Amino acid sequence: MMSGLRCPSSGRAACLRPATCRTTCAAGPRPCRLPVVSGWSPASRPAWPPSAVIWFRPACSAKFSFANRLRCWIEIGDFYPRLMPREVKLRATPSHPMQTLLNRVQAAHTLLCVGLDPVGDDAQVARRLAEVIDQTSEYAAAFKPNLAFFLSRENGVQLLRETVQRVPDGIPVILDGKFGDIANTADHYARFAYDIIGADGVTVNPYMGDDAIVPFARPGKLVFALAKTSNKPTHSLQDVALTRGGSLADCAARVARQLDEQHGGIGLVVGATNPEAVARLRALCPDQWFLVPGVGAQGGDLAATLRAGLRPDGTGLLINTSRALWQATDTAAAARELVEQMNQLRPVVV
Amino acid sequence: MMSGLRCPSSGRAACLRPATCRTTCAAGPRPCRLPVVSGWSPASRPAWPPSAVIWFRPACSAKFSFANRLRCWIEIGDFYPRLMPREVKLRATPSHPMQTLLNRVQAAHTLLCVGLDPVGDDAQVARRLAEVIDQTSEYAAAFKPNLAFFLSRENGVQLLRETVQRVPDGIPVILDGKFGDIANTADHYARFAYDIIGADGVTVNPYMGDDAIVPFARPGKLVFALAKTSNKPTHSLQDVALTRGGSLADCAARVARQLDEQHGGIGLVVGATNPEAVARLRALCPDQWFLVPGVGAQGGDLAATLRAGLRPDGTGLLINTSRALWQATDTAAAARELVEQMNQLRPVVV
Repeated sequence: MMSGLRCPSSGRAACLRPATCRTTCAAGPRPCRLPVVSGWSPASRPAWPPSAVIWFRPACSAKFSFANRLRCWIEIGDFYPRLMPREVKLRATPSHPMQTLLNRVQAAHTLLCVGLDPVGDDAQVARRLAEVIDQTSEYAAAFKPNLAFFLSRENGVQLLRETVQRVPDGIPVILDGKFGDIANTADHYARFAYDIIGADGVTVNPYMGDDAIVPFARPGKLVFALAKTSNKPTHSLQDVALTRGGSLADCAARVARQLDEQHGGIGLVVGATNPEAVARLRALCPDQWFLVPGVGAQGGDLAATLRAGLRPDGTGLLINTSRALWQATDTAAAARELVEQMNQLRPVVV
Repeated sequence: MMSGLRCPSSGRAACLRPATCRTTCAAGPRPCRLPVVSGWSPASRPAWPPSAVIWFRPACSAKFSFANRLRCWIEIGDFYPRLMPREVKLRATPSHPMQTLLNRVQAAHTLLCVGLDPVGDDAQVARRLAEVIDQTSEYAAAFKPNLAFFLSRENGVQLLRETVQRVPDGIPVILDGKFGDIANTADHYARFAYDIIGADGVTVNPYMGDDAIVPFARPGKLVFALAKTSNKPTHSLQDVALTRGGSLADCAARVARQLDEQHGGIGLVVGATNPEAVARLRALCPDQWFLVPGVGAQGGDLAATLRAGLRPDGTGLLINTSRALWQATDTAAAARELVEQMNQLRPVVV
């Protein structure tokens, strides 16, 4: 979970997660639908002005402006007691939306994304999820729960929410839902991922165009659009050659780059099973973050992927591993070993 | 919900939906994980043989074979009391998986797919969902709940399950989730859609290739793969021209046709906002069913779409309408009017 935003007067943390407001919310254990301020009486809430600006400490160099549009969930302590909207839009213009990810990568010296694809019976899974998170947190640049593995079990949404809550502050959680629908629908998926589950990012499918991606590009959120995936289907759309040159994956990468330039926070999903594609897409998108599945059970080549995809600063890649960690007998050791392997193959900027 | 399968000796309905087993399941109100037979004692269950074949009445010309792999949920009454597996695979080879849909279209003289994209507060939504289903069932060839609109609210999965249960027998429910992930993950989404929610079909996204589609092609299930969608993004991947000729949407349609030939039950999603694309894809896929969103709020032209997309038998299209019905004051009248409009524009085979 990402944090770092604090009220400059009270020093209290700004909580951007509905699910994490439990202890302070008057609304009880469910995600609160309204911001909560200590000692604040709902009856005396004044009208919300059309615009207002709050500066936070430069922990993530963020400036927030509000407008009467979307809900946000934010605990602002006694910082801003005179203005408390029913629904507000939270718009951040940090120095770069991926800055939080880079902060974590640099602070923990790791590119490891811990994939959470739980299999097993319910009791086993809940225990193992907690174990994997606790034992790999030290080594994780991010966590990536896959939505399908939660939805396919009873009370999967609740388990997913609890899983995200367990991730320590400062480590982004990317909900791997490969969402892709028209804008109106995508907005509902974004509410699910960010407001109900409390994720810090998502994966999205670009087949339906920018409509399907932009609604996820909320301030400070990390969006990874599929470009070249790690599977090797018989009928691959991603490899079809376009008359304008390049493959569909290249075209998807260009779209993601343009959207990143406009909205910020948009990276790519690029599988480790094809290092040539990693290199080609890195040439097309020199600055963007790549979420890289396919190392481990799917047979991707770690060294070749790092050579092909690292940015000159030794970052820009999130290397995902799911099954190898889930099945490890000593999970912490397995995660440490993976991080050490990666760090031997890249320049680590301290 | 689809049904029509009956035990030839007892005449009892075969229930393929976990959620509909409530009244007969010893396991209580949750989906039962084991088949249930009246008067059958779990303690005395014999071992399940490696293979066995049951013939049902030719209501849908289905032949079922079992193997020790996947769970199925089937109430077989006193038909097959000596063999009761813990987990079985149910594999049907009906004359055509889309036959159930055609049966409904022909029996109710309708091409209308009722989209369920609920908006509003929780109590309002539950009441309105029930109203829309009850008032449009007579006119509905299928129902199509959109996953995003359920996930974006508290207890959305439970609401979705109850919604699917409310749909009368014989009307297929297509869960619009636009799922698209590698095979292992897609299998989990299929379990969610079919086994937990109880849907009869899904929509899928072909960007990740056939891996992402095939796991949904279970016997008797309806799978609609995105080809040309109804939205008009600035950066459209679907319209990019391929060196092999045609657009990406055409390529996706060809993949879906090949998969339909191999696995059966695979149709296309083709938006009504572009009748030329409907005509082009109909030429490429003369036999497949098209699920057609975009009529109504999105501005699609109903008459042009029907002219472009109907098969010679006057079927082959499922015309989806969501918002126009959800917002109607007289929902039944609105549905009837839509069906009458469509039937005036097509040959109805009685």
